[in-house]
Amino acid sequence: MIYFDNSATTKPYKEVVEAYLKVSEKYFGNPSSLHSLGSEAEKLLSQSRILASSLLGVKPSEVIFTSGGTEGNNAAIKGVAIEYRNRGKHLITSAVEHPSVLEAFKQLESLGYDVTYLDVDKKGRISIEQLKNSLRDDTILVSLIHVNNELGAIQPIIEVGQLLKKYPKILFHVDHVQGITKVPLSLKNSGIDLCTISGHKFHALKGTGLLYIREGIKLAPLLSGGGQEMSIRSGTENTPGIVAMTKALRLAFEKANSGGIEHLWQLKERLSEGLKKIDGVIINTPEEKEKAAPHIINFSVLNMKPEVLIQDLSKHHIYVSSQSACSSKLSKPSRVLMACGLGEERAKSAIRVSFSYDNTIEEVDQFLDILTNSISNLQKVMG
Amino acid sequence: MIYFDNSATTKPYKEVVEAYLKVSEKYFGNPSSLHSLGSEAEKLLSQSRILASSLLGVKPSEVIFTSGGTEGNNAAIKGVAIEYRNRGKHLITSAVEHPSVLEAFKQLESLGYDVTYLDVDKKGRISIEQLKNSLRDDTILVSLIHVNNELGAIQPIIEVGQLLKKYPKILFHVDHVQGITKVPLSLKNSGIDLCTISGHKFHALKGTGLLYIREGIKLAPLLSGGGQEMSIRSGTENTPGIVAMTKALRLAFEKANSGGIEHLWQLKERLSEGLKKIDGVIINTPEEKEKAAPHIINFSVLNMKPEVLIQDLSKHHIYVSSQSACSSKLSKPSRVLMACGLGEERAKSAIRVSFSYDNTIEEVDQFLDILTNSISNLQKVMG
Repeated sequence: MIYFDNSATTKPYKEVVEAYLKVSEKYFGNPSSLHSLGSEAEKLLSQSRILASSLLGVKPSEVIFTSGGTEGNNAAIKGVAIEYRNRGKHLITSAVEHPSVLEAFKQLESLGYDVTYLDVDKKGRISIEQLKNSLRDDTILVSLIHVNNELGAIQPIIEVGQLLKKYPKILFHVDHVQGITKVPLSLKNSGIDLCTISGHKFHALKGTGLLYIREGIKLAPLLSGGGQEMSIRSGTENTPGIVAMTKALRLAFEKANSGGIEHLWQLKERLSEGLKKIDGVIINTPEEKEKAAPHIINFSVLNMKPEVLIQDLSKHHIYVSSQSACSSKLSKPSRVLMACGLGEERAKSAIRVSFSYDNTIEEVDQFLDILTNSISNLQKVMG
Repeated sequence: MIYFDNSATTKPYKEVVEAYLKVSEKYFGNPSSLHSLGSEAEKLLSQSRILASSLLGVKPSEVIFTSGGTEGNNAAIKGVAIEYRNRGKHLITSAVEHPSVLEAFKQLESLGYDVTYLDVDKKGRISIEQLKNSLRDDTILVSLIHVNNELGAIQPIIEVGQLLKKYPKILFHVDHVQGITKVPLSLKNSGIDLCTISGHKFHALKGTGLLYIREGIKLAPLLSGGGQEMSIRSGTENTPGIVAMTKALRLAFEKANSGGIEHLWQLKERLSEGLKKIDGVIINTPEEKEKAAPHIINFSVLNMKPEVLIQDLSKHHIYVSSQSACSSKLSKPSRVLMACGLGEERAKSAIRVSFSYDNTIEEVDQFLDILTNSISNLQKVMG
């Protein structure tokens, strides 16, 4: 099996599953319970929060645990929109956001908010100039994806953070779901107020995530209730999932910092070189290292329906995707590639390969061989 | 260990943990992915939806999977309030709801909605007459808890459902988190439009739940995004958690229907008889079988701080709770008991015992012995 769909989801690490299992069986108490089973669970929760925050370089009180990226994005965006509605109702985002950001904004538009969608260039990047010109007195939020989930393009988050520091009433939310551990992003003193992370993208279990909320920021809670997670995210804490996620985050950072990121670049360069030799293949991801993530490469196979190619590769136990997993069943041209101005033909035939630290050069070579054959065979059939 | 805090959370069944583990390791694909790893996960998800809906006697398209009870309650209440806001802004609930319901309504009040909180009698039950008198032309939602989480009192859901059938524009949401499998509730043709269930209350894993949404009802999504769960609850599906929860639901219903409910009544009667013999103990849960659930018994130990008693029992590996887990750390009189008019003294000294199908008569007898000693010793210390 060659699993190259790590931006859709990852295989959980063995140690992570083991941690989950242990906590589920031995520490199943409700962390809110007063008895010792409750306080043991509470202790695990608190240790996880300390570890997660230290890995992110923030304070434990700035981290809340969620059920995943979609919840984090919705909690941040809707939470700010509702909490600060008396300050203003203008929101800014980009044309290439994940559906969980885009649809949250669409819903807010239907509730009377005004949303500016920033354009992107052919590399999938917004312009700081356009952002500057979009800021208004009633702007309360800017939300941007760090690493684009389809293209791997990196937004100029650092510059945006610097700019927005001058506007303390405008909050800055970053969807860091694809970037975490793969593309370093410092949260402290970055101008970033809110940052979403999802567990299952770094070998943790599904249904886990976290949201960084800078000290002093209030959010109207999406999940109101018993007051867990500093009253921002109520609901019985998923202690096993949280412990396991924190462990996965530590392991992923360790891999990243011990040569993992360089390894991803090597995989990407090898793949990129190989793809350039195949007729009819165009790489959509920007080539410049500072403009794209090391683990995602998006390319179009002209005149080829991606679903046909994906099915064919799947028969060889090779797993890649078209667009993002969330949009893959709509057989439309990719919204992200269209927004980049890459044209309908490329947007209709895009394939995404996304690596984990554990993929190998051999897998890339094997993938290239099978892909080349597959394209050639399918072209014959279709021809 | 005598675990009598099953209304706070339950120990997951072994088979349920095993199912979770298997799916996490073997079927880790994203159900939205087009390749075979994705479609395998999608198949499991679809099978789980069919099983869950058949256990509940509803259609598969009427079940969406959530991250738990708090999310279900928030999704239903806020979802209706926002979706049907042009129809009216009046909402009805009771004074004895779970915090995830109560706080959702408080938030909606701050957003301009008008909420009526129905009173309850000493048995914790609302009056149909007061409900009738509260209905207005602009009422869009009635939300009631089925089995009260602190007291075990059962609301007259069937009568409310019958009444509300005459008002097709008023939706009826039921928080069935404590009732599921323990107190039968038929959803079909019941007048119930929305019903919340949480996995970890019936030996499934934390971070799982489901929401029944009757065909034809729309909800403004709490979690907007990629369109999963019929666009009502976006986010990568927690396939392992969902498969495990559905299995737990099947197992719990099997236990319930093969003598489990009668067994719970036997435990409760034994405990009730024993408690009546202890000086200073008053049972708060209604005695009539049709007015209270078989698995919850709430009693006050006069002049005794519940946290002290809980800690003392905890030393003997006996686990019970004061109030609900979600409220247990606020050392205030129980809001629910106060609303029932049971008085501050009883509301300040309440203990909740909650059984699972696996508790035994021997455990009840042992608990009664240790409780009697514990109360007597603590009274000496305090005296």
